[in-house]
Amino acid sequence: MPLLVVGSIALDSVETPFGRREEVLGGSATYFSTAASFFVPVRLVATVGEDFPAEHVEALKSRGVDLAGLERRPGKTFRWKGRYEFDLNQAHTLDTQLNVFADFEPVLPPAYRDSQYVFLGNIDPDLQRKVLDQVRAPRFVAADTMNFWITSKRDSLLETLRRVDLLFVNDAEVRQLAQEHNVVRAARRVLELGPRAVVVKRGEYGALFFTGSHVFAAAAYPLATLYDPTGAGDSFAGGFMGYLARCRRPELDVMRRAIVLGGVLASFAVERFSLERLQALTVEEIRARYGEFRQLAHFDELELDVFGDGSGKGR
Amino acid sequence: MPLLVVGSIALDSVETPFGRREEVLGGSATYFSTAASFFVPVRLVATVGEDFPAEHVEALKSRGVDLAGLERRPGKTFRWKGRYEFDLNQAHTLDTQLNVFADFEPVLPPAYRDSQYVFLGNIDPDLQRKVLDQVRAPRFVAADTMNFWITSKRDSLLETLRRVDLLFVNDAEVRQLAQEHNVVRAARRVLELGPRAVVVKRGEYGALFFTGSHVFAAAAYPLATLYDPTGAGDSFAGGFMGYLARCRRPELDVMRRAIVLGGVLASFAVERFSLERLQALTVEEIRARYGEFRQLAHFDELELDVFGDGSGKGR
Repeated sequence: MPLLVVGSIALDSVETPFGRREEVLGGSATYFSTAASFFVPVRLVATVGEDFPAEHVEALKSRGVDLAGLERRPGKTFRWKGRYEFDLNQAHTLDTQLNVFADFEPVLPPAYRDSQYVFLGNIDPDLQRKVLDQVRAPRFVAADTMNFWITSKRDSLLETLRRVDLLFVNDAEVRQLAQEHNVVRAARRVLELGPRAVVVKRGEYGALFFTGSHVFAAAAYPLATLYDPTGAGDSFAGGFMGYLARCRRPELDVMRRAIVLGGVLASFAVERFSLERLQALTVEEIRARYGEFRQLAHFDELELDVFGDGSGKGR
Repeated sequence: MPLLVVGSIALDSVETPFGRREEVLGGSATYFSTAASFFVPVRLVATVGEDFPAEHVEALKSRGVDLAGLERRPGKTFRWKGRYEFDLNQAHTLDTQLNVFADFEPVLPPAYRDSQYVFLGNIDPDLQRKVLDQVRAPRFVAADTMNFWITSKRDSLLETLRRVDLLFVNDAEVRQLAQEHNVVRAARRVLELGPRAVVVKRGEYGALFFTGSHVFAAAAYPLATLYDPTGAGDSFAGGFMGYLARCRRPELDVMRRAIVLGGVLASFAVERFSLERLQALTVEEIRARYGEFRQLAHFDELELDVFGDGSGKGR
């Protein structure tokens, strides 16, 4: 089942405590489609400028990503420049040059319109809906967003949310969107806005998954080497949606495994700069790390006789 | 198997966004022993002043806690006053009056000296060793500490750590102790200092457990109501050590369940102020919430046929 993604393609300049890279491949659609491509064919909708290196196009093609929806326009490719401090949890944006991304108008090639699984990357919520309008009968729609849209385009975002099955947000975003500090209550409030599921990404702490009556907590893989957190969230979404589209059955047990696979893909993405690690990844490595996540989180049932004698002496 | 604890007993004045309490029962030994008392008899070593209310003594007695080591001395009981902001993750200490706790010299009643399971609460590392010196043949010793001792008594703390099997710390403390930001590398460095296991408590994010070759990640129970985080860490340690002493088998599978039980006890402790919730708790509630933690963290093995066809089209 092909998976449709709309999002950004960027040339990133990134500085972390472990090094720096200039104008390397980045963008939400890039990380997402590379991560998802391990599970299903991906249909990409995005825009790049005339300066976008051919090698990056080839890298996406080699992952089986359908680029019929990749528009190359006069002008320069979107640039993002950021720095991470030692805690690596938050990007400090140093510079953003939207370039051709500034007037991005996503148009779906006719062959994309039958897509059933759709990921709306973190772009203007108006554009997210324009994409949805062009999909004939979406079966499962997930969206990402960010603080910028939550504050500057709240009404439009709320309109998008009414048409979305699942929202990916981080801790801070869910609190901001719901105007509620407690994450559990914040997630429940978001569920009243339209989505029937919310994934709260918590970086190095893992992720929480909420539906109306259901909570799942996934630990993140504790990494001794973490080079560049850029793209972790989109790699997470890519692993999640790729697996979901592969299974064609958006049930709770599938979604739990999808969350873990999201964590697996994100854990690889951050081990190197840019898409270096994801592009070198194998299905065997994904499977092995999934097994490590299972080991990591496993604990047995409680024995029957674990409590004291009830007399007050160690009752 | 009785469990020995040394720590503080305090009268806490606490303010959180959800209310305030004046001079309520607090202190590390209090939370620890109440939490542990569900599993084994607890032997307590601590000091209080003449003003310590008899009802609190009765409350500990009613949990089967052995108070032969509770010394009542001339002067006032240790007071702590703190405030939590909305994030509830960090206590802001407003006032500390050590009172009788200032010259606490822990002396073990003869009947305590055969204790095999020992918890050294967060006190001066010199005193932690003085307690250990009085225990004939400890089988499993766990310790807690804090930023204050890590900076002001580092050498003494390192000496204590050489005699400890397991250390409880939070994120910030393990980083500070190891002088390393990455939590995995920080924990490994602490393992070189003596303990063969480290539990990194991460508040609302759960806990990580490290031994030389082993990592376990436990999610925290996502709470919609969290009134007062005071004592969460000591309740965690109490649940952990109580279960461990009950099982008398400090193996990895037991320690994983112990960590989850620590999380269970902590999750109850923070639902009310002071020890209100722990004192009203039942073993049935503990067992039920352990089951909820199992549900919360569960996910199945990956199916065999989840990856693409390997052709590059969704390989």
